[in-house]
Amino acid sequence: MALASWNDGHAKLAILDFVAKVTLKGGAHFVPPAERIAVFDNDGTLWCEQPCQVQFFFGHDRLAALVKHDPSLAQRQPFKAYLENDRQTMHALGKKGLFEVGAAAHAGMTEAAFDRLARTWLANARHPSLGVPFPDLHYQPQIELLAYLRDHGFKSFIVSGGGIDLMRAFCEEVYGIPRERVIGSSLKTRFDMQSGHGELVKLAELNCFDDREEKVVNIGLHIGRRPILAFGNSDGDLAMLRYTKSGRGPSLALLLHHDDGAREFAYDRQSHLSPLTEALDRCVEYGITLVSMRRDWHTVFGSTISLAAPARARSAT
Amino acid sequence: MALASWNDGHAKLAILDFVAKVTLKGGAHFVPPAERIAVFDNDGTLWCEQPCQVQFFFGHDRLAALVKHDPSLAQRQPFKAYLENDRQTMHALGKKGLFEVGAAAHAGMTEAAFDRLARTWLANARHPSLGVPFPDLHYQPQIELLAYLRDHGFKSFIVSGGGIDLMRAFCEEVYGIPRERVIGSSLKTRFDMQSGHGELVKLAELNCFDDREEKVVNIGLHIGRRPILAFGNSDGDLAMLRYTKSGRGPSLALLLHHDDGAREFAYDRQSHLSPLTEALDRCVEYGITLVSMRRDWHTVFGSTISLAAPARARSAT
Repeated sequence: MALASWNDGHAKLAILDFVAKVTLKGGAHFVPPAERIAVFDNDGTLWCEQPCQVQFFFGHDRLAALVKHDPSLAQRQPFKAYLENDRQTMHALGKKGLFEVGAAAHAGMTEAAFDRLARTWLANARHPSLGVPFPDLHYQPQIELLAYLRDHGFKSFIVSGGGIDLMRAFCEEVYGIPRERVIGSSLKTRFDMQSGHGELVKLAELNCFDDREEKVVNIGLHIGRRPILAFGNSDGDLAMLRYTKSGRGPSLALLLHHDDGAREFAYDRQSHLSPLTEALDRCVEYGITLVSMRRDWHTVFGSTISLAAPARARSAT
Repeated sequence: MALASWNDGHAKLAILDFVAKVTLKGGAHFVPPAERIAVFDNDGTLWCEQPCQVQFFFGHDRLAALVKHDPSLAQRQPFKAYLENDRQTMHALGKKGLFEVGAAAHAGMTEAAFDRLARTWLANARHPSLGVPFPDLHYQPQIELLAYLRDHGFKSFIVSGGGIDLMRAFCEEVYGIPRERVIGSSLKTRFDMQSGHGELVKLAELNCFDDREEKVVNIGLHIGRRPILAFGNSDGDLAMLRYTKSGRGPSLALLLHHDDGAREFAYDRQSHLSPLTEALDRCVEYGITLVSMRRDWHTVFGSTISLAAPARARSAT
């Protein structure tokens, strides 16, 4: 059954209606397959972003490895905050501070070496409270939605503030989204030709911080077509939700509300990482469909985590 | 029959062998479909770039429209050279001069408006000597190659110095390549939200000039995977040809040599737009397969132009 982990309700119906409408040949709202573009935020939309975005954990582990070679880093920001897990300073330094860590950790690394490193980390690192590998943090209802859209001729893209190459290291296996459909934040790279062998090498310079309006700019650059479906969970996704809703034809913009403290987490306005204020307050005015994790999702995580969930839910209270 | 417009010979055999090898399940050189990435230059590789790249004609026509509103442009470079068709100055100003023209012509324009403009121009403008619409300048053997690769599970991308949005206006209809698989030079854009409606607007600032090493950088950014097949026609494509040949598994790099003055044009080293020196001199050393337009292509253009070709060939002699 399609969308088995979605409860019957407003959100599921909106999805089913929309897909039926745009795929009905000869119908007034038919959209040709080439134009069935869907965009998904990643952190907090396709997988869990609490207590920290996965990128933070990755940055922390990479930094710990760096400090072994250069202990002086431990006294300088933003490195100090990350090593000491000083949340307040980390949040004050923001996502850009994280990318400084990333630049320090990965400059000079080839794309191939980074991919190996990221895959090894994703396979071995564990979420601190859930105790599972990070790729298991994907939401089961979203996996079903991605498959449902794929079965109906949609092409889905990730458009995330997360590091583009970290996402590419698991997006095919976990989401069924190929590497070339991942858009994210990135460092600049240089093409290096040495002894007849060519490699792309990461530089210590931010190429793009893919958040808010920049998400739309990157949709234009990478996709070159306005999406007809967008799914996000924070004000950082609002620009792409509104860009999607500004199309001439039918469109669907969805906003996941983390309101499920029992099975996942409950947060919105107060979140440092993913503030949700304007998008939540004005979703009706903007034509955005609110998805309640608590009411609209029958299951949150896949089988691996739902087994462990009661223990975690207890420890979090 | 596959590749009907290709003559039997070294180049065609290299393609057939390569595709057979990487698609043979259980074979030593099998490549999973997700990794069958092919990249193609556009100007001079997929369509004709003489006597000028199509982008130049587009720029010239756009500029003529601009000067009606602001006659002072006609006295300033690079505009003056374009309006007067002053080839020497145009070449001296290079491709970046062209993009200054593009920026002046298109800054402030929405992506949707640009797409309409580009489609109208492509449908109505005519090649000065061949007398046909520019999209008819595609090479028939390459259309067959793109289809052949598609039929064998490859994903083909355009990686061109040409303007990304001009190419996107015809790539699906002509090449069967969807918009999101087009990489090219681009202006920066800004997301504009006005009266509840969101649009991407072009800015008067170059985002990326997609040539030489930058082509590889953009392959990393947009595709995130090393291609296994690359096809170019100039030194501007050499970096991506060598990047492709530096992969661990099987790879095929092809270089089109314009050596057919009777059916198309004969040029290499002396060309201002697409100099071909290092790639031609060292193709054997670099493992690049040379494709001779004269010997390897049975047909050059599709039916529309082959009918008109005798007249043009005469007038060019």
